[in-house]
Amino acid sequence: MYAVRYELIKTCKQTGARLGRLHTPHGVIDTPIFMPVGTQATVKSMTPEELKEIGSQIILSNTYHLYLRPGHELIKKAGGLHKFMNWDRPILTDSGGFQVFSLGPLRKITEEGVEFRSHHDGSKHFLTPEKVMEIENALGPDIMMAFDECAPYPADREYVKNSLERTTRWLERCKAAHKNPENQALFGIVQGGMYKDLREQSAREITAIDLPGYAIGGLSVGEPKDLMYEILEYTTPLLPEDKPRYLMGVGSPDDLIEGVIRGIDMFDCVLPTRIARNGTAMTSQGKVVVRNASYAEDFTPLDPECDCYTCRNYTKSYIRHLVKTNEILGARLISNHNLHFLLNLMKDVRQAIMDDRLMDFRNEFFAKYYGK
Amino acid sequence: MYAVRYELIKTCKQTGARLGRLHTPHGVIDTPIFMPVGTQATVKSMTPEELKEIGSQIILSNTYHLYLRPGHELIKKAGGLHKFMNWDRPILTDSGGFQVFSLGPLRKITEEGVEFRSHHDGSKHFLTPEKVMEIENALGPDIMMAFDECAPYPADREYVKNSLERTTRWLERCKAAHKNPENQALFGIVQGGMYKDLREQSAREITAIDLPGYAIGGLSVGEPKDLMYEILEYTTPLLPEDKPRYLMGVGSPDDLIEGVIRGIDMFDCVLPTRIARNGTAMTSQGKVVVRNASYAEDFTPLDPECDCYTCRNYTKSYIRHLVKTNEILGARLISNHNLHFLLNLMKDVRQAIMDDRLMDFRNEFFAKYYGK
Repeated sequence: MYAVRYELIKTCKQTGARLGRLHTPHGVIDTPIFMPVGTQATVKSMTPEELKEIGSQIILSNTYHLYLRPGHELIKKAGGLHKFMNWDRPILTDSGGFQVFSLGPLRKITEEGVEFRSHHDGSKHFLTPEKVMEIENALGPDIMMAFDECAPYPADREYVKNSLERTTRWLERCKAAHKNPENQALFGIVQGGMYKDLREQSAREITAIDLPGYAIGGLSVGEPKDLMYEILEYTTPLLPEDKPRYLMGVGSPDDLIEGVIRGIDMFDCVLPTRIARNGTAMTSQGKVVVRNASYAEDFTPLDPECDCYTCRNYTKSYIRHLVKTNEILGARLISNHNLHFLLNLMKDVRQAIMDDRLMDFRNEFFAKYYGK
Repeated sequence: MYAVRYELIKTCKQTGARLGRLHTPHGVIDTPIFMPVGTQATVKSMTPEELKEIGSQIILSNTYHLYLRPGHELIKKAGGLHKFMNWDRPILTDSGGFQVFSLGPLRKITEEGVEFRSHHDGSKHFLTPEKVMEIENALGPDIMMAFDECAPYPADREYVKNSLERTTRWLERCKAAHKNPENQALFGIVQGGMYKDLREQSAREITAIDLPGYAIGGLSVGEPKDLMYEILEYTTPLLPEDKPRYLMGVGSPDDLIEGVIRGIDMFDCVLPTRIARNGTAMTSQGKVVVRNASYAEDFTPLDPECDCYTCRNYTKSYIRHLVKTNEILGARLISNHNLHFLLNLMKDVRQAIMDDRLMDFRNEFFAKYYGK
């Protein structure tokens, strides 16, 4: 018996989209779902209560960052990540693979694992599949991602093939090292870059290892959107129907909707909170760069159709003032709004699947948000 | 009829302390009171709802900063400062005098007013008593401070005497220029540096101008605490009993208690939120520098005797992690706690006056907080 169980409620008649529920040790979540990112055991600027108020059902945190600071042993002593950060709903941790491979010259990959230097203090570390399982078992999330290698874009065929095959071998080692499968679900990650045959090979190898869920990695790494959608459309059908499918690191509104249409159930991205801290809001009318002078005397909410705390209480003019003066409340108010916007978008997407009108919803949303 | 009215409830039998209420257009506040500072139309990192939850009855904002950004005309168009920042309880604005005089070489004082360059962009500005009244009338706070000159410490007698006499003349001009006395209360400010006879002269001149409240400025500007308390003890009795007395820019726990003992009703200070952003908490056991390594595995709250949101939900270990990783939530949690601590301290002080045990309370608090 695995720690999480996917329940398929309905398959879209027009697209590959599916409506479902994921049962986890910390509660049931509705899919398709967007997971706010709390890289360092905090969704930047937000409290757990605020995350709940806007409808966050599950959040993501980051193994690489928590391993370095404050350390997984400390979090274990604190009673695990849920208790440490005061969040009692489901948590997914990624494996740190993406972060470590992004270090470039600071890391060295071997069959055994990855040696790297901390981006904080230059200290030397060695992550292996076994070590990553030890860390994620200590952190105690409901879902833990396997240690994989995310190939860059562009990358030649040979590199990507070697990389995906190593990712398979590492997944086997992860599964063998995982100490707590009754309470924590290990997800495997399909790689293969932009090569369809390699995606197929990876999907075959990864899903041959029986696990409670599978992810698609190595997309949204710089490739054109059309290519990403093409690879996604090719890859998702290769995953089992009775398991959740997670597209890693994707979170712009168009990618969320196109991902759902291609059969994805779970998404995460730092985008909504990152652009918030930079003064940009996602709204029903598209992006609003509230820092712009044109909003100086705009006494209307960020989004006239939104009912979040920010839009109920504050004007663009005030939020612009906060952003221009680098006040923390500015980052808070826009983060709250942006996360609410994406969580609400996914709620609307789920309703559209239920009502058999996902393509209509997609077209209406794109016309409004992107003007196309 | 003035915009605010002071109601004396009780005078302490042991000290100069007084219990009272201040009736304002936006509600009644209990005195003695601490006012959280929202320099730029936001109490740093906090929402209005959070401020209310911890018992903030009135906040302070800053004329100088709001005049420069976003501008008082914009705030007037927004419907005034209360509406602009979504705060419906009383607001006091200081006049900008202190900030302008702190600019040093960037400003030039004449009888007419002060010419200065903005600390943001170097643009040239000229503040006069009339201009400050125009700004504060536009902002619309319940209480507006007169434009004064705050002498530095140390300063020679001649300088301080000229300065306080100009402050008196400027107060007369402020009163004459004030357009909205029915809805906004103008407070005069007693200066005089560390010279008792000059404090007496200033108090006599300032209180000769009939106003709904008076402040003591020019203290806590670098002088020894004993000297500050001595000057305070000399000055407060020179103020009328039927008006509120406000000691500007003071907010450490010892200064608050010593100020109350010497007859002060109102205080403000950036200290609790400033040290919070630096990782320091005020607790019933004294200051806690949560950044220190000794708290890395301390899974107890910041203050075991505190019932604020932060102390109910988070450990020192987690807050230390947030501070060390520069996470916004760290500043939020400690700011919330520190403001709660000072607001609660003042509540206890009011109760101690009510119970005729203020000196006992003082001694117990000092023993616990300062170990003396």
